[in-house]
Amino acid sequence: MTPLLLTPGPLTTRVETRAAMQRDWGSRDQAFIALTAELRDRLLAIANGKAGHVAVPLQGSGTFIVEATIATLLRPEDKLLVLINGAYGERIASMARRLRLPVETLIFEEWEPVDPAAVERFLGENPAVTHVAIVHCETTTGLLNPLAEVAAIVAKAGRNLLVDAMSSFGALPIDLTQTPATTIMASSNKCLEGTPGLGFALIEREALIAARGNSPSLSFDLHDQWRGFESNGQWRFTPPVQVVAALVEALRLLEAEGGPAARLARYGRNLDILVDGMAQLGFELFLDRALQAPIIATFQSPPGFAFEDFYQSLAARGFVIYPGKLSRAETFRIGCIGAVGPADFQRLLAVIGETSKENGRAA
Amino acid sequence: MTPLLLTPGPLTTRVETRAAMQRDWGSRDQAFIALTAELRDRLLAIANGKAGHVAVPLQGSGTFIVEATIATLLRPEDKLLVLINGAYGERIASMARRLRLPVETLIFEEWEPVDPAAVERFLGENPAVTHVAIVHCETTTGLLNPLAEVAAIVAKAGRNLLVDAMSSFGALPIDLTQTPATTIMASSNKCLEGTPGLGFALIEREALIAARGNSPSLSFDLHDQWRGFESNGQWRFTPPVQVVAALVEALRLLEAEGGPAARLARYGRNLDILVDGMAQLGFELFLDRALQAPIIATFQSPPGFAFEDFYQSLAARGFVIYPGKLSRAETFRIGCIGAVGPADFQRLLAVIGETSKENGRAA
Repeated sequence: MTPLLLTPGPLTTRVETRAAMQRDWGSRDQAFIALTAELRDRLLAIANGKAGHVAVPLQGSGTFIVEATIATLLRPEDKLLVLINGAYGERIASMARRLRLPVETLIFEEWEPVDPAAVERFLGENPAVTHVAIVHCETTTGLLNPLAEVAAIVAKAGRNLLVDAMSSFGALPIDLTQTPATTIMASSNKCLEGTPGLGFALIEREALIAARGNSPSLSFDLHDQWRGFESNGQWRFTPPVQVVAALVEALRLLEAEGGPAARLARYGRNLDILVDGMAQLGFELFLDRALQAPIIATFQSPPGFAFEDFYQSLAARGFVIYPGKLSRAETFRIGCIGAVGPADFQRLLAVIGETSKENGRAA
Repeated sequence: MTPLLLTPGPLTTRVETRAAMQRDWGSRDQAFIALTAELRDRLLAIANGKAGHVAVPLQGSGTFIVEATIATLLRPEDKLLVLINGAYGERIASMARRLRLPVETLIFEEWEPVDPAAVERFLGENPAVTHVAIVHCETTTGLLNPLAEVAAIVAKAGRNLLVDAMSSFGALPIDLTQTPATTIMASSNKCLEGTPGLGFALIEREALIAARGNSPSLSFDLHDQWRGFESNGQWRFTPPVQVVAALVEALRLLEAEGGPAARLARYGRNLDILVDGMAQLGFELFLDRALQAPIIATFQSPPGFAFEDFYQSLAARGFVIYPGKLSRAETFRIGCIGAVGPADFQRLLAVIGETSKENGRAA
């Protein structure tokens, strides 16, 4: 039996999405060129980005697209400010330092959203900062950062905003006509409910044109990757054709579901059922409820809690959950995203109730 | 109807391989950790590399694994010699230059194999060269380079050999106990007959240990990628789980077929039927027959030949072929690899015969 995946991804996908992986495609053939065009068009449409942005998909994991975007857009004379309140913000700073780019950081507690006023102050005091990176939903905790407020401040200060929307894109609203951003980066296998193997960046066309020749990496040059698509509709290097086909199918299913707003509503119902049910079983959220996005919920481990036993016990009953990733608190995580709905969470809660009783915890 | 793909990849795969993509996997779950271990073990076994090498798979296309290997293994004080007789050798030089590594090249004609004596001479005259890169089968033409001879010379000269075995691995023999090489790099979707989305390098364990901290890229650090696998069996960053599952299934099917020797024999039969049949239809090989590996065959375009019409005509009849990639000759290519056999090539030849007649060419 395939378990339900209640993680930050890879996720449980729909059978139609996986069925789209059942054929082979010539990557330079007309049929696949059409599929790639549909992919790029649908990705851009989700963020209302057709006026000034272009969609550049890239082979590999979500980390690859973030690194490629930074490698492509930043020049050695630029300076990046990374807003950090979790592991994915830390990772952006770490990859930029590896690329030998000048990096500043503004660090918040893992349970605190990024503070827009602090960003405004920092930019005022640091005119050398040219780019600001923010993680929209920090997967470390599931905390939602105030993207719109930060975007307005960064735009007002005349800097470029890079948004890691890995775990939010396709569910939480992002509208490039309202929220100014040089780039929005995400991947195939989170709220879009595709299979893993692809990342993508929506990048301002003018910024991408200006970035020609910047990247120190052939593979991670998104300007050249984009030029490839524009010149003949093809990928520069072999694409994961089945993953592309699955993502296009998943994007059609997203539209059929009613788009990101409908998907967010489903995930929100998942989270409500989960949080209320867990509270009844004695498990408390790590974050303030208002900060917890309906993407992945972080729960405090009760005293004496044995995560590994809990994990195995749920896995044996068909639910794969996720360990915590916090630096200073014992927690575990349960994802709300993927092809899962309220009934799945009702079943999960029943199983957790049984498990807790067996292990002698008060239910 | 899905056409047969007679290209350098993505290829026609077996239905069992694609069926392995029909489930979801938690990438940090025990079942997927076991799958990853099987993958790494089988890849190493194919090249008889268990004594001193380790297998490091990487998300993305074949180009990514080549760049990651170079970024990981070479230090700024090292110098790379690239042996070039086609576009893939050129690409290695170009990615190394982008990484700002010192690069030398030895360039041969696209119809000439790399000359081992020239390599020996060059290494004698250039003691600063620390690493030598060769493309085993140059996909530009399908030319087979003399790997064993070059490997012996590089080893005798005390340098490190990097082998781009992208289009040969899994069919043409590579035995690390006989052919000394610091690394062999390849991808999931050529002779292994998996689906695209993964590359891998077999790397000498000692060289990889010594490469800690070298890579200027977080994503392309194969030392850290390897440490991830060794520490908990997991991928550092989200793997394309369905592509991994398909590749493991494809590797099991390779073993069931009789291993690389049996696969090479099938591809050899494919090539023989193709070349003989094409000669009867008036199409000549670009290379000397002895240099043409049974991977992808390059044919000279006859005078007045309209490739695009030819391509579309074959595609409409269920066969996807490939354009040429030579800098100075009009050619086209037909692949011999993938889940295709002699009967497919008999059918192809019949179709080409009809097409040629329709287009008024002598059959």
